[in-house]
Amino acid sequence: MAFGMKEFFNVTDLDQVLSYRSLFDPVETEQTDICESTGRILAEDIYSGEDIPDFDRSVMDGYAVKASSTFGASEGTPAYLEVRGSVLMGEQPSFSIGPGEAARISTGGMLPVGTNAVVMAEYTDILDEGTIEVYKSVAPGQNVILKGEDFKKDRIVLSRGSLIRPQESGLLAALGKSQILLYKKPVVGIISTGDEIVEITEVPMPGKIRDINSYTLLGQILESGGVPIFFGIVRDDYQLLQKKCEEALEISDMVLISGGSSVGVRDFTINVLSSLPSAKILAHGIPISPGKPTILAQSKNKQIWGLPGHVVSTMVVFTTVVNPFLAKISGCTENRGQNFFYKARLTRNIASAQGRVEYVRVHLKQKDGNLWAEPVLGKSGLLHTMVLADGLVAVDMNCEGLDKGTEVTVIPI
Amino acid sequence: MAFGMKEFFNVTDLDQVLSYRSLFDPVETEQTDICESTGRILAEDIYSGEDIPDFDRSVMDGYAVKASSTFGASEGTPAYLEVRGSVLMGEQPSFSIGPGEAARISTGGMLPVGTNAVVMAEYTDILDEGTIEVYKSVAPGQNVILKGEDFKKDRIVLSRGSLIRPQESGLLAALGKSQILLYKKPVVGIISTGDEIVEITEVPMPGKIRDINSYTLLGQILESGGVPIFFGIVRDDYQLLQKKCEEALEISDMVLISGGSSVGVRDFTINVLSSLPSAKILAHGIPISPGKPTILAQSKNKQIWGLPGHVVSTMVVFTTVVNPFLAKISGCTENRGQNFFYKARLTRNIASAQGRVEYVRVHLKQKDGNLWAEPVLGKSGLLHTMVLADGLVAVDMNCEGLDKGTEVTVIPI
Repeated sequence: MAFGMKEFFNVTDLDQVLSYRSLFDPVETEQTDICESTGRILAEDIYSGEDIPDFDRSVMDGYAVKASSTFGASEGTPAYLEVRGSVLMGEQPSFSIGPGEAARISTGGMLPVGTNAVVMAEYTDILDEGTIEVYKSVAPGQNVILKGEDFKKDRIVLSRGSLIRPQESGLLAALGKSQILLYKKPVVGIISTGDEIVEITEVPMPGKIRDINSYTLLGQILESGGVPIFFGIVRDDYQLLQKKCEEALEISDMVLISGGSSVGVRDFTINVLSSLPSAKILAHGIPISPGKPTILAQSKNKQIWGLPGHVVSTMVVFTTVVNPFLAKISGCTENRGQNFFYKARLTRNIASAQGRVEYVRVHLKQKDGNLWAEPVLGKSGLLHTMVLADGLVAVDMNCEGLDKGTEVTVIPI
Repeated sequence: MAFGMKEFFNVTDLDQVLSYRSLFDPVETEQTDICESTGRILAEDIYSGEDIPDFDRSVMDGYAVKASSTFGASEGTPAYLEVRGSVLMGEQPSFSIGPGEAARISTGGMLPVGTNAVVMAEYTDILDEGTIEVYKSVAPGQNVILKGEDFKKDRIVLSRGSLIRPQESGLLAALGKSQILLYKKPVVGIISTGDEIVEITEVPMPGKIRDINSYTLLGQILESGGVPIFFGIVRDDYQLLQKKCEEALEISDMVLISGGSSVGVRDFTINVLSSLPSAKILAHGIPISPGKPTILAQSKNKQIWGLPGHVVSTMVVFTTVVNPFLAKISGCTENRGQNFFYKARLTRNIASAQGRVEYVRVHLKQKDGNLWAEPVLGKSGLLHTMVLADGLVAVDMNCEGLDKGTEVTVIPI
C-alpha cells in the first residue's frame, strides 16, 4: 500500500501535520454550572478570593493547645493542662486559651485564639472534670491545617486551559464558584460517503455494508469530550458531498468525512474540499499505517478531515492525529492523564515497513507483575483486531520492527 | 492516626472488604440506542446474525482475479489478462471471471464470482482497452477480506458485562444492532454531614466551610459511569441523618455519606447505619491511609458508605475501594483500560508506616523517555496535593517505604 499510494499524492510529514494545530482557535466559551464541569476545559483563570481554609482547623479529635504547653511531656513526665471548654463544630470558640490550658476539639473544629496545635485524644488521660494529662509533646502546627495553608488568598489556583477533574471541582466548590467559564464542547460533524454504505437499520443488499465508521467516530468524539452530530450517508456524488459539507460546516466546529477511499472518490473528495469557502488543503496523505490516505483541509477557521474508508484506519487516524486537533480547539493546554501512556513489553517480534509510522494493535495482560503487550494478529482492515485490542504501539518510521521483550509505549484505545 | 483509630474500631482487612462485592447484584437493564452506549456495560451476549463482511471485499484499488492467473508473473514475464468489466461500488457484479481474466475493482468492492484475490493497480499496465499486463503474482486471499473473515455468523462476538468502547459500537453497527440491552447507570446518592458544612453558594461564617466533598464525589461518580444525586447537607443529628439515609436509599443504588469524622458523629453514623432496614455493618475501619475511618454497611441489596470527612481521604477511598463496588453493580465483568495502571519510577524516597496501605499522591513527568513519579509534598488533608497530582502510589502495608528509583504502579486520578 505504501508504494502504491505514493503515486496518488505527496505524503506530509507527521510533525508538520500536527503543527497545523496552531491554525485553529479554541471554540467559544460559556458560563457553566459546576455540576456540569467534569471533564471539561476551564476558559478563565481562577483566583482564590479567600484563604482555604479560612481559619485554623483541627485534623484530629483531641485538645487544642499552645504547643509550648506540651514541650517536654512524656509518659514519665506528663504535662498537666486545665480544660477550659469544648469547641463546637462549625462555631467560633467564645473563649481563648492561655499557656497551661486546653480545649476539647473535634476533627474540623476551629482552633481557639491562643492555640496553634492539637494533641490527639489518645495521648491524653482525663484526671478530673477540669484537668488532663498529656503524654506527648506537639510541635506548632501539628495536627492542624492553618488558615491559608491549602490555598492562599489572591493567587491564581487554576489556569485557563485546565482540565476539570473531580479534585478541581472540589477546589471550585471550596472557593464558592458554582458557575465558571468553560470552553463549549466542540461540535464535530460526521459524514459517511460511499455508494456501498447503508444505514445500520437496513439489511444490506449484496455488495453493500452497514455504516460502521459513523458509530466508531461517534464513540471516539464522545470520549474526547466533543459533541458528535450525524449528517448521514452521502452517495459518491460531487454535488451531494459539496452540499453536505457546507451544511455540516455551518453548525460544526470540525467535520469528519469517512469513506471514499477508492481512487475516483478520493479524487472528487479532494475537489469538494478545495471548493469550500477559503479552502486550503493542508495535508493529503499522512505517513502512518493504517491511515495513509487521510486529507486535512481548512475552510475559514474550521477543519475538514477526509478519513480512510476502512474502520480500523479511521480509528487509528482519529486516535493519533485528529484527537490532538480536537484537544486544541477544546481549549485544552495541559498534558494530563491520557498523555501518559502505558509502558509494556512485547510478547512477540513485530515487523514493520520503513518510511511510515506503523500502529500495531496490542492486547495488554498482566503477568509476573509486569504489563505485556501481545500483538493482535489479523489483516489491518479487520474490526475484530480493534475489539481484541487495548492499545496501539507505534513502530517508528525508521525502524524495521521491534524485538520480543522490547519495552514499548502503548496508546490506550 | 493509625494508632489512635485502633481504639475506636476494628480494622477490616482490605481484601476482605473488597470480597464483599459479591454481596451486591448488578443494577437493572434497559434497551438503549447504540448512540447512547459509549462507556456503558452490555447486559446481553451479542451474536453475529450474519457473516461480517457478508461477501468477499477488495481492500485495494486494482483488478480482481483468480490468483492462479498471476502465478509466475514478474517484471520480465508479465501475465496478460483480459479485462471483462468494472465492479460498481455497492453492487453485485453481473459477470463472472474465468482463468486469464480480470475485473476492475475499487477498495470495498465485491469480488466477482471466480475471483479470490486483487492485484494492486500499481503492479499492472494497461495494454489496450481490453488487456492488462500484471507484473506481480498474488496469493489466494491477498488484498481481500473474505466473507466472514472479520466475524463469523452465529458466534458470540460480545459478552454480557463488556464495556462498550468505540470499536464495540462499530461492531454493533456492523451487525445492525441499533438497540441493545445495557445495564442502567447506577444511581449514587450523596449526603454531606457536619454542623460545620455550608452550601457552596454561601459565605461561610467563622468555623464553617463549604461543602467540598459533594462535588469531588460527583465528579468521581460521573467518571465511573454513575449518576450522582445530591441529597444535601445534614446537620449532626441522628434523626435527620436517619431520615435522609432512608430517603436516599429509596431512589439510589448506592449511598455515600461523607463527613462525620469526629468521634461523636462517627458513633451516631454507625448507629444510623445499623438502624436501617435489614442493616449489616460489613466494615468499620479500613487499613488504608488516608481513609481509615471508612464504614461499609449493607441495607437489603444496597450499599451505604460512611466516608471520612477530609476531602483527600474521601477521594482516595472512592478511587481505591468504592469504585470496584460501583463497577460490580454496573455489571462490568472485565478488566479493561482503567485497570492497567502506569508504571513509573520514584524521584524521591518515600517513608510509610507499616500496618496499612499508604496512598502517596504523585505528579507524573516524562524525562529521558521514562515516566517519573514525583511525590507531592504537603499534609494529607490538603486538597492542593490532589490538584497537583496525577496519580496515587500504594505503599504496601508490610513496607516501611520505597527508595528513589523504584518502579511503582500509579493509579490515575
